[in-house]
Amino acid sequence: MIDLKVAIIGATGYAGIELVRLLLRHPEAELTYLTSDSYTGQELAAVYPHLTGLLQSSLALSIHDDGVSTLKAIDVHTIAQCADVVFLSLPAGLSSALVPQLLEQGLRVIDLGGDHRIPADLYEAWYKKMPADAAIFRQAVYGLTEIARTKVAGATFISNPGCYTTAAQLAILPSLQAGWIDGRRIIIDAKSGVSGAGRGVGLGTHFSEINENFKAYKIGAHQHTPEIEYHLSLASGQDTCVTFAPHLVPMTRGILATSYLPLQSKACGQLTQEQIYETYQEFYQDSPFVRIRPIGQFPQTKEVYGTNYCDIGLYLDQRTKQLIAVSVIDNLVKGAAGQAVQNLNVMYGLDETTGLEMSPLYP
Amino acid sequence: MIDLKVAIIGATGYAGIELVRLLLRHPEAELTYLTSDSYTGQELAAVYPHLTGLLQSSLALSIHDDGVSTLKAIDVHTIAQCADVVFLSLPAGLSSALVPQLLEQGLRVIDLGGDHRIPADLYEAWYKKMPADAAIFRQAVYGLTEIARTKVAGATFISNPGCYTTAAQLAILPSLQAGWIDGRRIIIDAKSGVSGAGRGVGLGTHFSEINENFKAYKIGAHQHTPEIEYHLSLASGQDTCVTFAPHLVPMTRGILATSYLPLQSKACGQLTQEQIYETYQEFYQDSPFVRIRPIGQFPQTKEVYGTNYCDIGLYLDQRTKQLIAVSVIDNLVKGAAGQAVQNLNVMYGLDETTGLEMSPLYP
Amino acid sequence: MIDLKVAIIGATGYAGIELVRLLLRHPEAELTYLTSDSYTGQELAAVYPHLTGLLQSSLALSIHDDGVSTLKAIDVHTIAQCADVVFLSLPAGLSSALVPQLLEQGLRVIDLGGDHRIPADLYEAWYKKMPADAAIFRQAVYGLTEIARTKVAGATFISNPGCYTTAAQLAILPSLQAGWIDGRRIIIDAKSGVSGAGRGVGLGTHFSEINENFKAYKIGAHQHTPEIEYHLSLASGQDTCVTFAPHLVPMTRGILATSYLPLQSKACGQLTQEQIYETYQEFYQDSPFVRIRPIGQFPQTKEVYGTNYCDIGLYLDQRTKQLIAVSVIDNLVKGAAGQAVQNLNVMYGLDETTGLEMSPLYP
Amino acid sequence: MIDLKVAIIGATGYAGIELVRLLLRHPEAELTYLTSDSYTGQELAAVYPHLTGLLQSSLALSIHDDGVSTLKAIDVHTIAQCADVVFLSLPAGLSSALVPQLLEQGLRVIDLGGDHRIPADLYEAWYKKMPADAAIFRQAVYGLTEIARTKVAGATFISNPGCYTTAAQLAILPSLQAGWIDGRRIIIDAKSGVSGAGRGVGLGTHFSEINENFKAYKIGAHQHTPEIEYHLSLASGQDTCVTFAPHLVPMTRGILATSYLPLQSKACGQLTQEQIYETYQEFYQDSPFVRIRPIGQFPQTKEVYGTNYCDIGLYLDQRTKQLIAVSVIDNLVKGAAGQAVQNLNVMYGLDETTGLEMSPLYP
Repeated sequence: MIDLKVAIIGATGYAGIELVRLLLRHPEAELTYLTSDSYTGQELAAVYPHLTGLLQSSLALSIHDDGVSTLKAIDVHTIAQCADVVFLSLPAGLSSALVPQLLEQGLRVIDLGGDHRIPADLYEAWYKKMPADAAIFRQAVYGLTEIARTKVAGATFISNPGCYTTAAQLAILPSLQAGWIDGRRIIIDAKSGVSGAGRGVGLGTHFSEINENFKAYKIGAHQHTPEIEYHLSLASGQDTCVTFAPHLVPMTRGILATSYLPLQSKACGQLTQEQIYETYQEFYQDSPFVRIRPIGQFPQTKEVYGTNYCDIGLYLDQRTKQLIAVSVIDNLVKGAAGQAVQNLNVMYGLDETTGLEMSPLYP
Repeated sequence: MIDLKVAIIGATGYAGIELVRLLLRHPEAELTYLTSDSYTGQELAAVYPHLTGLLQSSLALSIHDDGVSTLKAIDVHTIAQCADVVFLSLPAGLSSALVPQLLEQGLRVIDLGGDHRIPADLYEAWYKKMPADAAIFRQAVYGLTEIARTKVAGATFISNPGCYTTAAQLAILPSLQAGWIDGRRIIIDAKSGVSGAGRGVGLGTHFSEINENFKAYKIGAHQHTPEIEYHLSLASGQDTCVTFAPHLVPMTRGILATSYLPLQSKACGQLTQEQIYETYQEFYQDSPFVRIRPIGQFPQTKEVYGTNYCDIGLYLDQRTKQLIAVSVIDNLVKGAAGQAVQNLNVMYGLDETTGLEMSPLYP
Repeated sequence: MIDLKVAIIGATGYAGIELVRLLLRHPEAELTYLTSDSYTGQELAAVYPHLTGLLQSSLALSIHDDGVSTLKAIDVHTIAQCADVVFLSLPAGLSSALVPQLLEQGLRVIDLGGDHRIPADLYEAWYKKMPADAAIFRQAVYGLTEIARTKVAGATFISNPGCYTTAAQLAILPSLQAGWIDGRRIIIDAKSGVSGAGRGVGLGTHFSEINENFKAYKIGAHQHTPEIEYHLSLASGQDTCVTFAPHLVPMTRGILATSYLPLQSKACGQLTQEQIYETYQEFYQDSPFVRIRPIGQFPQTKEVYGTNYCDIGLYLDQRTKQLIAVSVIDNLVKGAAGQAVQNLNVMYGLDETTGLEMSPLYP
Repeated sequence: MIDLKVAIIGATGYAGIELVRLLLRHPEAELTYLTSDSYTGQELAAVYPHLTGLLQSSLALSIHDDGVSTLKAIDVHTIAQCADVVFLSLPAGLSSALVPQLLEQGLRVIDLGGDHRIPADLYEAWYKKMPADAAIFRQAVYGLTEIARTKVAGATFISNPGCYTTAAQLAILPSLQAGWIDGRRIIIDAKSGVSGAGRGVGLGTHFSEINENFKAYKIGAHQHTPEIEYHLSLASGQDTCVTFAPHLVPMTRGILATSYLPLQSKACGQLTQEQIYETYQEFYQDSPFVRIRPIGQFPQTKEVYGTNYCDIGLYLDQRTKQLIAVSVIDNLVKGAAGQAVQNLNVMYGLDETTGLEMSPLYP
């Protein structure tokens, strides 16, 4: 038995509380320390009543007098005493200061935020914030698990990918590596549920403004754009350029990315639907969370609801010389907390699916 | 290891597919035979793509050539060969013919439908259909688990309660047994998500007719009315009469029942909020799936999403001499498949929570 | 041609902006002054882009240099110069200070807030705020138009009813006046869309917390309770006592109130469904906005969407001795801005339906 | 006074019932004959209770004994007696047989279906149905009003554009005519509310399958693809080729189209955001229903809810050499019934906005 002691910094945001959901049922992990800036000192079940009665039972061993169910302030030394590994789920710009301290204490770290995903120059240009220390950035393993499995296995510090970027990269990379498409003219039209905007209040998450409504936002300016380009380029060895347009769907969970991949002229007329399907199947044959849909079938966001799956459907449009890839994830699971747990598993040599075996909630 | 072999008759309705979700992850159960009237001969994952890849892995031991993932017709003899216990999830009027045959084969049966919940005269009056055989009805244990745990333990045939009736009875029974309220003037105003209407198509489940809309239906005429009255009366030893008004909420899952319980004159001015809270806490102290909310807090449907919990909030209105109980369940879990699995567990002496330990999906 | 000059104080809340929608198309009204605390100095179309291009065309005559489309601060003297009548749409506690000043300037006033609906003692007990001046309260005509039409006709100051209270009173009053029901044991279970909570941000209006969720709130404590009791008692001459439980529906617009009206013993067995229908029809025969549904039909909120209708369905449950009335309104129209315009029409001797003749938006 | 007598063939589908909503309030039109295949002989208000009481008042002049409110079968001779103009709102393949008969009777015709929008060869290839008669097709004026206003003015037969095609063409055409973009590599990623799928029942419109879900459908195969290509080519004089991918949004009304328009090399680095804005403003300066949003602002579907507006936002991505146009319409109004009424107005020399002057319903 491994029994990892786990701390979550930022436990009351939506990604944080999804980590709680997953780790409460993870057979090898035990939550020991949960922080919250907004609710320090309160019981977690008072903030999230759906957890009523759930933390007591599974967390009896907490070393703290007031128990793990009481939300704490961030205290690196106490965390070092009671945890082996720390998940950070913080707004952009906050984790870059904390990570060095945590690593110095010998803790392993999985950062769900964006601070360590792209180099300093890109970070500054797109996030308009101070970038992380360059040495720390170099230490970070970019944890798109399916692509980086071997690096994750030995890592002490994981930078967990963004939600949109996970859905997009998993759909695009096999085609890019196969040499079928022109990576400099990729268009990604992505659609996300509202939980991706977090639990912060504002008109942008106000029910009456979002419900029965659909909109685009941050076209050409979303900070996931350079993340996609940078890591697609790294993984494929080809220069990529991406037009990325995110949209907001009146639903809580789910991302669907429609990627328009222009065929290289040599691929036109040659490539077949079957060949594409088989290449993707093979590419992901050892990846239990990626499911390639049969030819002619496109995935829907609800079909991965509450799970760590990324489902991909593919369409070859010979008429317009485009390969169209539709990929779906649950933005809070494969797009955040689930992939973080998947990385935890790989990091510690556990089966990749440990604690993540649930079926999608449908309907 | 117990390893129960399980058949589901009616696996492609919403309660059936929820049984599949739960039983796929149940450590002591193995699905061996799934029937579907509408999709006989098809692969389950073709009907429900969210199950892509999930049945193969867990059901390798199926005795059938074409595997459990292929939907079958109902064949009692084959079922008897490959199953220990059968779940029925069929429209009203269909299970009464099947149950005797299944029992005769020595199978244990859990019927999620309404055919065996109330005596023949009530059934005929409210369902307008031929009632089940009286001897079979007498054999049925009404499986509101928290109330009937000891009877369920020895049972071979369970009649699983209705969704509304589960939410209502769990909220009302402690007050009724405590003698605080007048059982002849109970009002239950219940609200359900649309999945309660099943997967059948019609204007009543058409998105554009339901979305951004709210309505009442079957006021005074819903078939769960006699079920509530009959079983509340049986369990409390008091005559009860219930005005029951169901409503449809533009959401997929969840039931919230608001029960208005008129105080007996002796209880007025005497009873306190604290006393009510403690009585309910005690009533359900050995029931892991019932959570009584702290005084002043009311549960929301999302707080039990995807789980077998029934959460209850209570308000004593001294001004109007009413005790108001608000209870929530996930209609497909505690209101159907989850309670059925809970009954399976109790029936076979397993821990009541086996396979049902998930945290609610929030948000 | 009458051509009323109209000011709106609080134009950027949801009731305020609904007043803008209705008055922009009102043939006898002209908007001349719009105030907003949050957006003073901004263009209305910058705050609400759906109004792009709409104010210029219809408001060319504005006397202000910067035009009506620029949101102003509250300035009673300027308002008095450019308006005949003022609508107030402010949070509780703010209009009681303004109304005396506006009236003193000779302006007519229609207050959509709750400050002048109930006497000081009730107001203090339920709103926990300083009540309005008693003399001003006595001057206010409570504008439930269908009931108070003659008083509204001569009024200079209207207190516009609350949303829940409008739906409930219109459904209950005919039965109460007919002497069929016991007014001291009324139960109203009401359900509202989220726009009723206004445009203010908070977790209570956060999309991910509300969507695919249903909850009760303020049971036994909602400030519309005394308004219903007070005005039902006044209008019927009978003492009434109401258990009122509001709920939040994951939709934007609409209220449905289910009123449980216990039959007087003399009415039991005598009263018929037809008699009830005819009594209601007659009661509202001169009320173009109240539609009594045929026996056996219940209204849905979407069937009055965007309009000033209140639709009512009735069910006589002889078995449980209850008359159940289901009433629906659009909370922002008949529950707020629409009824305010209806009162404006009656106040000035216009046809009651002027500017309110639209058909419901369905689906 | 013009007083047009209007028949609607297919009045109980969603486009048909939206025509009823608009024409009931149209000052120059009178409904005289409504047909319904599914509900012949029934009262319209029995099928659509939101119309309770609305048809009697405005349609007193009907020449039929049983009044316009009773739904009829299609009878060309009777229609010819009581109508000047006929709207057809029928499933694909049905209007091509009816239109010649109606025209022969001297009726003017506005066909909301797809049978007369594209030439026979394209129709057969994409609709997989028998095309309309070629002579009739040539007679049809394609009624994208903003583009075809002068032709519509003299027309007797209008083929009303599709919903997606209206949103897409209005957004793309100014850029295409300006010569900025390469028309052979256009990508349109479109998102529609569910009412676009009509009132027919099926799993594709089942609430529990659509709600809290998002999906793509008919990628590369949607019948609006050739309509967009054909009419963009005709209007611009340039060959266009379009990759078109429609998606389904869990909402009732609204379409948002995101059009990715690759810049011609000569335009790169030259074109400015301001120039684009001004060109679009000028292009639509006489079009009251097209609103170009200020630079940096993108429209949302709710901002045109219930109205005939098409709002367009534009973004020039110099980095990726794309012009991105986001356009929104209400699919049932500008995408169907509203544009049909707009065409009626232009056809008869009325002001283009007659009967269409409402403000958007927001929120």
